Amino acid sequence: MIGAMQDFELRVSTMIDHAERQSGEREIVSRYADGSLVRGSWSQVARDARRLANALARLGIGTGDRVATLAMNHGRHLAAWYGVMGMGAVMHTINPRLFDDQLAYIANHAQDRVLIYDAAFAPLVERLKPQWPTIEHYVCFDGEGEGSFDALIAQESDQFVWPAGSERDPCMLCYTSGTTGNPKGVLYSHRAIVLHAMTAVTPACLAIATDSVVLPIVPMFHVCAWGIPFATAISGSKLVLSASNDAAVLCDLMHQEGVTHSAGVPTVWLAMIAHVDAGAPPPPLEHVVIGGSAASRAMMSRLMDMGMNVSHLWGMTELTPIGSVTKRDPGFDALPREAQLDLLSKQGATPYGVEMRIADEEGNTLPRDGVTSGRLQVRGPWVIDRYFGDERARAVDANGWFDTGDVAIIYPDGIMQITDRAKDVIKSGGEWISSVDLENEAIGCSGVAEAAAIGLPHPKWDERPVLVVVRKEGANVSEADIRAHLSSRIAKWWMPDRIFFVDHLPHTATGKLSKLTLREQFRDVRLDEPAGASA
Amino acid sequence: MIGAMQDFELRVSTMIDHAERQSGEREIVSRYADGSLVRGSWSQVARDARRLANALARLGIGTGDRVATLAMNHGRHLAAWYGVMGMGAVMHTINPRLFDDQLAYIANHAQDRVLIYDAAFAPLVERLKPQWPTIEHYVCFDGEGEGSFDALIAQESDQFVWPAGSERDPCMLCYTSGTTGNPKGVLYSHRAIVLHAMTAVTPACLAIATDSVVLPIVPMFHVCAWGIPFATAISGSKLVLSASNDAAVLCDLMHQEGVTHSAGVPTVWLAMIAHVDAGAPPPPLEHVVIGGSAASRAMMSRLMDMGMNVSHLWGMTELTPIGSVTKRDPGFDALPREAQLDLLSKQGATPYGVEMRIADEEGNTLPRDGVTSGRLQVRGPWVIDRYFGDERARAVDANGWFDTGDVAIIYPDGIMQITDRAKDVIKSGGEWISSVDLENEAIGCSGVAEAAAIGLPHPKWDERPVLVVVRKEGANVSEADIRAHLSSRIAKWWMPDRIFFVDHLPHTATGKLSKLTLREQFRDVRLDEPAGASA
Repeated sequence: MIGAMQDFELRVSTMIDHAERQSGEREIVSRYADGSLVRGSWSQVARDARRLANALARLGIGTGDRVATLAMNHGRHLAAWYGVMGMGAVMHTINPRLFDDQLAYIANHAQDRVLIYDAAFAPLVERLKPQWPTIEHYVCFDGEGEGSFDALIAQESDQFVWPAGSERDPCMLCYTSGTTGNPKGVLYSHRAIVLHAMTAVTPACLAIATDSVVLPIVPMFHVCAWGIPFATAISGSKLVLSASNDAAVLCDLMHQEGVTHSAGVPTVWLAMIAHVDAGAPPPPLEHVVIGGSAASRAMMSRLMDMGMNVSHLWGMTELTPIGSVTKRDPGFDALPREAQLDLLSKQGATPYGVEMRIADEEGNTLPRDGVTSGRLQVRGPWVIDRYFGDERARAVDANGWFDTGDVAIIYPDGIMQITDRAKDVIKSGGEWISSVDLENEAIGCSGVAEAAAIGLPHPKWDERPVLVVVRKEGANVSEADIRAHLSSRIAKWWMPDRIFFVDHLPHTATGKLSKLTLREQFRDVRLDEPAGASA
Repeated sequence: MIGAMQDFELRVSTMIDHAERQSGEREIVSRYADGSLVRGSWSQVARDARRLANALARLGIGTGDRVATLAMNHGRHLAAWYGVMGMGAVMHTINPRLFDDQLAYIANHAQDRVLIYDAAFAPLVERLKPQWPTIEHYVCFDGEGEGSFDALIAQESDQFVWPAGSERDPCMLCYTSGTTGNPKGVLYSHRAIVLHAMTAVTPACLAIATDSVVLPIVPMFHVCAWGIPFATAISGSKLVLSASNDAAVLCDLMHQEGVTHSAGVPTVWLAMIAHVDAGAPPPPLEHVVIGGSAASRAMMSRLMDMGMNVSHLWGMTELTPIGSVTKRDPGFDALPREAQLDLLSKQGATPYGVEMRIADEEGNTLPRDGVTSGRLQVRGPWVIDRYFGDERARAVDANGWFDTGDVAIIYPDGIMQITDRAKDVIKSGGEWISSVDLENEAIGCSGVAEAAAIGLPHPKWDERPVLVVVRKEGANVSEADIRAHLSSRIAKWWMPDRIFFVDHLPHTATGKLSKLTLREQFRDVRLDEPAGASA
């Protein structure tokens, strides 16, 4: 006996069809790199998507073929997404901020057959063309002449019957850029993308309604822009896309288009705050989601001062990407600001669809007691099973748990707090020291601009913490000042063995602090018995 | 090549697990028929569900077996839902308001093996026991002694490993009570129930957040209580359940528990308004959903006066049940009240997951022009494919369209308006006259309490409308008064050939107007050439 309901496959094509049917006239506004503003709609995007599907079919692109983009956020990119995925091909969004060797590797590994790129990335494309033998067709999103996106689809019919197929078919490919080894591809299924979008619109995640106006600052090449281009199709909301992430451009656009919802990494919000501090009127946002890396209390508090509901989102490429979001339990609004910031500083709770646990090194589930920390692991319908091109090796354990590489605490109310990257955690005398906690406390010391804590080998304690500090411009904070500051804030045995001052810290291509490089820089430091380690 | 994400089955068990993990301490408040108030939680419901699963396994209940309930809304009923569905059996909710012959038929057709019932329905159970040969075990939800629900689970462990299985497996069974023939069973799959719940919490539907407090007035035996017991598990919200639908009880409960969201049929809202009119403070509701049958403008306006956001929901047992909900496009809040009521009076737009069209008698899709009316048809992952026990005959056409039996108009913005039941539409001279429109206009005439329009055979026009009217108490409105009222409001050829006055109109067991009975009552009326039919 099986359930007697319809077998209706959850395909990306059903989302754009829904948007066209239910909110066809709702605007898609694009602010291109040249400053031009183009007003389209969900109907227009749907028609262009079908035109592109016809054009790609004419070029011989079929089911499962990879079509890459190297592009910022705009309506043509959106139409390309729905056209490629709708016709059953795979949209591969490439991050233009990667290094050349990564860019070369990724397109070859994906065996991209078509690349559609922004004119701004033409020099990059010209430079890398010789290294991209699988790419047969280059199309430029900008302009109207030969080789342009508009020219490619101009003569095509806006009628195209989306192929039927399984919701388990792939539709999108994103590569993670880890700090070691080659980037790895995550091949999203239609099912994962659709279920993730259905969840993204809920009040527990992005809270997107039909009358919301959404501007994703997060780029479309960054894990599906956190699913916002799909979520807004489901909700039928107005979508505002900007190829520029300049704070002044974004702020003007938000005012002009009445943007109510936005999402981006901490950096863009810091720039927005600086822009407002310089005299601009605060953007009219109601809901702001901050993700990608940890958001500071000060930044979140400033945005709340501007009247915005702030949420903290934690995710990963391997999670499509939403893993957890700030949980607004009853009474949240009535809490004092500091208590709200305590909650916002954590990574939040999983929406339905993500199961989360912490585990020890042997894979045993650890308690959700708000104290015990362990390896953060997740599973669910939008969590990776195996990396692209590596189909035989699963990326999960026998019970489906994917290890995120993070170390976290889970509280009894389901709220999760990341305390470290597993590879960055400092193992001293059999106990774990959170490098993140140490850094956060150090940053609280007046005169400290940036701080990184790493573990270095120690003959007795296995590892001991070392702190690497960048001073604020003009500040002359000393090692003694920092030790004095830390002494009342951390356990005695957490006290760094050494504190070094540097001019800047090393970062990866995607802007993350590279502790790998840092550990290499300091690998010749020899630590003796630590002064503060009586534990 | 397949997508490389996890195969994670969407089972009802994952929803109760999620609620327990993420909102375990959030309250489930039950107000029982005897007036007692029991405070539980999602954890407690989850534990009781697992206890019941152990108890049912002990009784020999296994995968796919039907366990029936004959019960109002309360926490034990909720635990029974999750226990039965979690263990892979099928929860069959029986509507206690049906006639005895229907109750006998349904339990036999479903081959129910266990029946769990409220003490209030004990007389009904005693009366029907001899006609229910398949039921092996009777359990009473109330009390603590032998034969009670509490006694059944008292000795059981609260540990139970939910079985793995397909999301296509059945988990729930509801029978529709049509006006003709035997009731038909709709066998919901886990997948349909989960996807429906994921949609129910979105702003486009019930807008349920973690901090919402939800009281479904709609009974749990009425199409899964519109999915609210599942939606609130996904959102981890506080749930308030009342075994009584008395307006005074509900209003007190809403105040006492701070209820923000509620949903029910028009009748309960009319009673609530009468209760407030009698001096009670309006309930503190923020969101009210009205469904089950068309809501009047006056009623919706009164609820809006009390500060509530009102939505109109249209659904069917065959749709799990959500088909469409009032669409709040940008600017809705700024519209004048009358324009808002115009929108609220329509049946709203489909959320993502329901595809809707109108079709002619040959199955051709008709335009969404706000003028053309046709047979309303739907498809999607929570739409029926075939009725239970009738597996070989699909309930849909070759393209998956399920005919709702309604006649509707769809506007260009996707908003749908039901104009009639297909079997009630009056076919005069090749054109359709909407019996619902005719009734609504007639009800607007002073002195008219209720009105029903039916089509009776006519030698020349095929059918002509006849109006059957119940006068308001003490009113003496005449046929001439009604004709005068209608003449400026309807097309000339819609004018009823005859107007009859009766003391009351016939209704079905579930409270719907029975036009079938009415047509039988008036089948001997002979219509001549209609006076007003010059068209």
